[in-house]
Amino acid sequence: MISPLLMALLAVQGADGPRARDLGVAFEGTPAPLNAITDVAGVEVGHRTLNEGDDVRTGVTVVLPDGRRGRNQVFAAWFTLNADGEMTGTTWIEESGILEGPISITNTHSVGTVHQAVIEWSVRNVEGLSWSLPVVAETWDGMLNDIDGFHVEREHVFEAIAAARGGAVEEGSVGGGTGMRAYGFKAGIGTSSRLVETVHGTFTVGVLVQANYGSRELLRVSGVPVGQEITDLMPEFGTAADGGGGRDGSIIIVVATDAPVLPHQLKRIAKRASLGLGRNGSVASNGSGDIFIAFTTAVKNVGTEDDGLYDVRMLGNAELTPFFKATVEATEESIINALVAAETMTGRNGNTVHALPHDRLRSILRKYGRLVE
Amino acid sequence: MISPLLMALLAVQGADGPRARDLGVAFEGTPAPLNAITDVAGVEVGHRTLNEGDDVRTGVTVVLPDGRRGRNQVFAAWFTLNADGEMTGTTWIEESGILEGPISITNTHSVGTVHQAVIEWSVRNVEGLSWSLPVVAETWDGMLNDIDGFHVEREHVFEAIAAARGGAVEEGSVGGGTGMRAYGFKAGIGTSSRLVETVHGTFTVGVLVQANYGSRELLRVSGVPVGQEITDLMPEFGTAADGGGGRDGSIIIVVATDAPVLPHQLKRIAKRASLGLGRNGSVASNGSGDIFIAFTTAVKNVGTEDDGLYDVRMLGNAELTPFFKATVEATEESIINALVAAETMTGRNGNTVHALPHDRLRSILRKYGRLVE
Amino acid sequence: MISPLLMALLAVQGADGPRARDLGVAFEGTPAPLNAITDVAGVEVGHRTLNEGDDVRTGVTVVLPDGRRGRNQVFAAWFTLNADGEMTGTTWIEESGILEGPISITNTHSVGTVHQAVIEWSVRNVEGLSWSLPVVAETWDGMLNDIDGFHVEREHVFEAIAAARGGAVEEGSVGGGTGMRAYGFKAGIGTSSRLVETVHGTFTVGVLVQANYGSRELLRVSGVPVGQEITDLMPEFGTAADGGGGRDGSIIIVVATDAPVLPHQLKRIAKRASLGLGRNGSVASNGSGDIFIAFTTAVKNVGTEDDGLYDVRMLGNAELTPFFKATVEATEESIINALVAAETMTGRNGNTVHALPHDRLRSILRKYGRLVE
Amino acid sequence: MISPLLMALLAVQGADGPRARDLGVAFEGTPAPLNAITDVAGVEVGHRTLNEGDDVRTGVTVVLPDGRRGRNQVFAAWFTLNADGEMTGTTWIEESGILEGPISITNTHSVGTVHQAVIEWSVRNVEGLSWSLPVVAETWDGMLNDIDGFHVEREHVFEAIAAARGGAVEEGSVGGGTGMRAYGFKAGIGTSSRLVETVHGTFTVGVLVQANYGSRELLRVSGVPVGQEITDLMPEFGTAADGGGGRDGSIIIVVATDAPVLPHQLKRIAKRASLGLGRNGSVASNGSGDIFIAFTTAVKNVGTEDDGLYDVRMLGNAELTPFFKATVEATEESIINALVAAETMTGRNGNTVHALPHDRLRSILRKYGRLVE
Repeated sequence: MISPLLMALLAVQGADGPRARDLGVAFEGTPAPLNAITDVAGVEVGHRTLNEGDDVRTGVTVVLPDGRRGRNQVFAAWFTLNADGEMTGTTWIEESGILEGPISITNTHSVGTVHQAVIEWSVRNVEGLSWSLPVVAETWDGMLNDIDGFHVEREHVFEAIAAARGGAVEEGSVGGGTGMRAYGFKAGIGTSSRLVETVHGTFTVGVLVQANYGSRELLRVSGVPVGQEITDLMPEFGTAADGGGGRDGSIIIVVATDAPVLPHQLKRIAKRASLGLGRNGSVASNGSGDIFIAFTTAVKNVGTEDDGLYDVRMLGNAELTPFFKATVEATEESIINALVAAETMTGRNGNTVHALPHDRLRSILRKYGRLVE
Repeated sequence: MISPLLMALLAVQGADGPRARDLGVAFEGTPAPLNAITDVAGVEVGHRTLNEGDDVRTGVTVVLPDGRRGRNQVFAAWFTLNADGEMTGTTWIEESGILEGPISITNTHSVGTVHQAVIEWSVRNVEGLSWSLPVVAETWDGMLNDIDGFHVEREHVFEAIAAARGGAVEEGSVGGGTGMRAYGFKAGIGTSSRLVETVHGTFTVGVLVQANYGSRELLRVSGVPVGQEITDLMPEFGTAADGGGGRDGSIIIVVATDAPVLPHQLKRIAKRASLGLGRNGSVASNGSGDIFIAFTTAVKNVGTEDDGLYDVRMLGNAELTPFFKATVEATEESIINALVAAETMTGRNGNTVHALPHDRLRSILRKYGRLVE
Repeated sequence: MISPLLMALLAVQGADGPRARDLGVAFEGTPAPLNAITDVAGVEVGHRTLNEGDDVRTGVTVVLPDGRRGRNQVFAAWFTLNADGEMTGTTWIEESGILEGPISITNTHSVGTVHQAVIEWSVRNVEGLSWSLPVVAETWDGMLNDIDGFHVEREHVFEAIAAARGGAVEEGSVGGGTGMRAYGFKAGIGTSSRLVETVHGTFTVGVLVQANYGSRELLRVSGVPVGQEITDLMPEFGTAADGGGGRDGSIIIVVATDAPVLPHQLKRIAKRASLGLGRNGSVASNGSGDIFIAFTTAVKNVGTEDDGLYDVRMLGNAELTPFFKATVEATEESIINALVAAETMTGRNGNTVHALPHDRLRSILRKYGRLVE
Repeated sequence: MISPLLMALLAVQGADGPRARDLGVAFEGTPAPLNAITDVAGVEVGHRTLNEGDDVRTGVTVVLPDGRRGRNQVFAAWFTLNADGEMTGTTWIEESGILEGPISITNTHSVGTVHQAVIEWSVRNVEGLSWSLPVVAETWDGMLNDIDGFHVEREHVFEAIAAARGGAVEEGSVGGGTGMRAYGFKAGIGTSSRLVETVHGTFTVGVLVQANYGSRELLRVSGVPVGQEITDLMPEFGTAADGGGGRDGSIIIVVATDAPVLPHQLKRIAKRASLGLGRNGSVASNGSGDIFIAFTTAVKNVGTEDDGLYDVRMLGNAELTPFFKATVEATEESIINALVAAETMTGRNGNTVHALPHDRLRSILRKYGRLVE
């Protein structure tokens, strides 16, 4: 049960629903004002949600590292904990240390359409562009969504980019996360952020996830074995014949920062998303595409084709531990935020995935002495 | 000049034109009968060439590891020498050691369309498939082709798959290679193979390249500095304003074998394509996507989703050196085959890329004592 | 306080002290009989502990994949979560998929001596050996140990190998773990194992760690924030001038299994040690060398220098998730076992590192509803 | 036969013997004044050669990135083409992007001794050092050297460091290269350099190799199949029973530059050593440890343990192609320099490895139109 005080707080925030922290889930570290990836200045997020008819439960989410400017070349790196998934464009990021254009996240069978659409958008909107190798990632929503119907279209991508903005980020069953589930509960998009104090000033780390992984019994919230406490509310299949699809899920994690770090340091940061998953109980199952990308907005327009000689700043490696901690914490919280925000959904074949019940979550945390009241 | 004897030989072979070896270029090692990737039993290649009007010079080439069976799960691995390019699906290959379905090669701005088409084809043709992470690679043909016109369509991919077959492989300006150039000459698709004798029997290594890389002065043929000898016949721009596009090119290399090797050994084999490039003078320039994939047909249907326990055979590491040598040699020859097969082409904006002149190639090889007569 | 029943149980087991599970720490999964890496048949562990005088607190631990046979070639792979550390020999393991000879773990400044000693031992004991690239790993014990005194000598390595055996493994301040600390408590060697049921039979996963990482506040035991509950008992420096040394620690993790998996699958298993660390609260700080190696005894003597053609068996990738889970769980438990086994130690400069107090650990677990009673 | 003019030139240069270029071998690109890795300002090289009695033919070579200062922290990266070898310290370089202290190269069975000696030297000479993870690499000299006699001792390492200096670098059978062979000829240490012109000024790339790889028939010099022309002068075994040892050799390649490039860009540069090997005919055989390390002196003292925030400069990726070319060319030439400098040697068991005969090399190059006269 949510307290009247909490309800009031939520009203003040103008949020659609409570976030994990609002429910009393204990997290470590200090979030930035929005507790979202958009706390990193310049970062914009756009969703295009497709929730139509009986079985269209999908969409696309874009993260723009530097606003709508398509050629927003920023330092970046990636890492895969388990790679039963796709994130295009990473080959060049690994080589160049540079990310250009948006990061798009959709369903497994719409990667091509989104890829093509981002190229078209780039050709039309980015001055001087002669080639594009976009970053498109996916998770599998075939239990709730008619994934083989290929419902994501080029225009939806253009709309997601057009809709991108800073400020609060809608979570749960939106954008690419529309049809996703995690730990046997409805999930989707989640986000969080942390402030990182250093002797050189305060920086921000922001995380956005599209969560679609994990089996129920593994779920830990603040270290509490919530997944072992809630053994009902399992996904329900509308027809006995529907196995729910082959992939046991995936998670795409985007980490943004404004700290002056180099590409090889961003790879270190990206890797830490693994530890946030670890805190929540993940074992990174065989069929999961646990793929992470990290970028910094501290250096922009590090061109790849002109006579460039760039001045860049670099935090010493010994300064990075707080950023690692921030990434772990914000990943941990983003996933729980996705679970908390998503509501029960029925989709393809009448399949239903239940929301994580807020009141029971609070009860369990209280039982284990971990509810922040 | 080609000798009457050679002409007669070619007639007997029924080939459309001579291959590098027919012109007297010296190579090491022993090719299999077709001197093509299709010497590896079961491997099929299909092209869909788009050569229309003034400026459509592109297409798609597919390599099917095990014929048209879409779920032809084979051991595979990949490697990038330089990664200004894309090869989707490799994240999962790196993780699983397994390639499913066709390898498709097209132009940079058609990756998404081809990706989507392969998924659609797979959904319709592969029994039991619930998800697909296709392998799609690309090189940049924007000098000759209207690459931003997005002329490759879904149907072209279906046609390329339908056209796939064993036997001799068409080379030069065909399929994905239609608009490609290398070392300032017209290039595209090339292939070659080698027999590998071991105490355990004879195996085959086959290579197919989509060659679109390198500046003229670097070209070495059989070690001879051909690129420094032919300084004319440079690409011509129809309009002064056309810079020919930003990317200095790429090469996609597919290595197939029937030898019993494990995924980590296939990565070793894939890496050797680098040394074939080295022999031909490549420096793997910044803007080049030099991306290689290797697979073996020795183990098939190593499923990823059932209760599998598989018996596989593995050549000891100490047996691999001849396979490394074969890969180097077949890569070296495939690239020269692409150059020899391609004819002069005029395309977008009236831009022209010249063929490597056979007679001058022979003269230069003779001058340097390297012509096989 | 330990109950009389528990004390009786321990007496029956003949153990020197309780292990984490004996204290009531909740873990998931089913251990094999010894709850140790030696549950994997053939695996032997040997310690040589150097605990002498005021400031010698170090040693060496060896893990033999297949007993004292030096050329015990087994499939292997490695992974680094954070690499401020050393594990020699991994370059060849990455390439060949094969581990030969012992895995040795010592302190940072004795890597060379141990490396040289293993080569000498191999030259003298392994028939047909012409070269050796041993695996030697380290963590930094300079707070308690006179690390720059180079007290580990060749003979100590020979003695550790000679002492290696199956059966129960001594934990805590022994062997390479003698002077190590974790989360601000005394730590060192820990081990654990899990049984993995599959349709193809029951397999074993065993883990051994040399734990020397992490700051106090991060420690989670069974998800409970123990490190935030015990804020006293911090390491004490005998002299104000002693900063305790630069490195914030490391953890070496060895994963053994008897399951038929290939080298690329062992890399997947090795990666999962990260998630065990995540459960215990690690953020893999900058100065930590979190380096993991995994091997299987299912295939032996996969020679690297003869005319080998080997029959190997391979579990399908879809079978691996339970092995991932087992690795996560056994890693989580091994680390807590190291903390539980180690006793308070005073060493160099009078520096002291306290043991994790068993009674307080139990109290805290009880407070958070996580004590198994 | 060497011409009187050439002899005169050599006298002027004060060299001990001709280098490849002096013999008329054709190379591309423009070397810096010394045509050596020491053309990169600050880089010093030291050899300690052990050529004693019948069978001691080994030693150690050190490359100091920034003179004798032990904590010369510079940006670095590494790459392995084939990894049947060892280069310690690379795990931390991969993570941190930073190289500290000397790079040492010795024989396979002396890695531990050299590693230990570098730590001892560092502890004594580097202020503020609390830990050390030295870079030690090796190739196998067991045909000519009593490698299992462990003749390299700690003092030899100290002497090599003490002997390090800028200026001309002794090549051939010196230092770590004393007992090495390549392509069936005596080889060892070789070096070369290139000037790289950019719009931002002229930079230098220097390469040093310890060459000990390759079978005779593969050798290409300037693209000419020299190894197929010289089929005599093969290594001779003093006793029939001596197989010459198991490893077919290795090559360690060190690339230095003064260009402002970041660690991920240095990895790209390191990779290009592969293409230099490719030009010389290498296939990177199974038993070869082809391991490369690259560093830049443009940024120094990028500390790892203080509150660092560093200003670093970075050449745009598009500027890197000339550095790639320089690396390929200097690698190609360094290897030939090692072959040209080494003289015939007899060692263990009376085994003999012949020098590449200068006159025959010149004759063959002339025959193939590739002698610079």
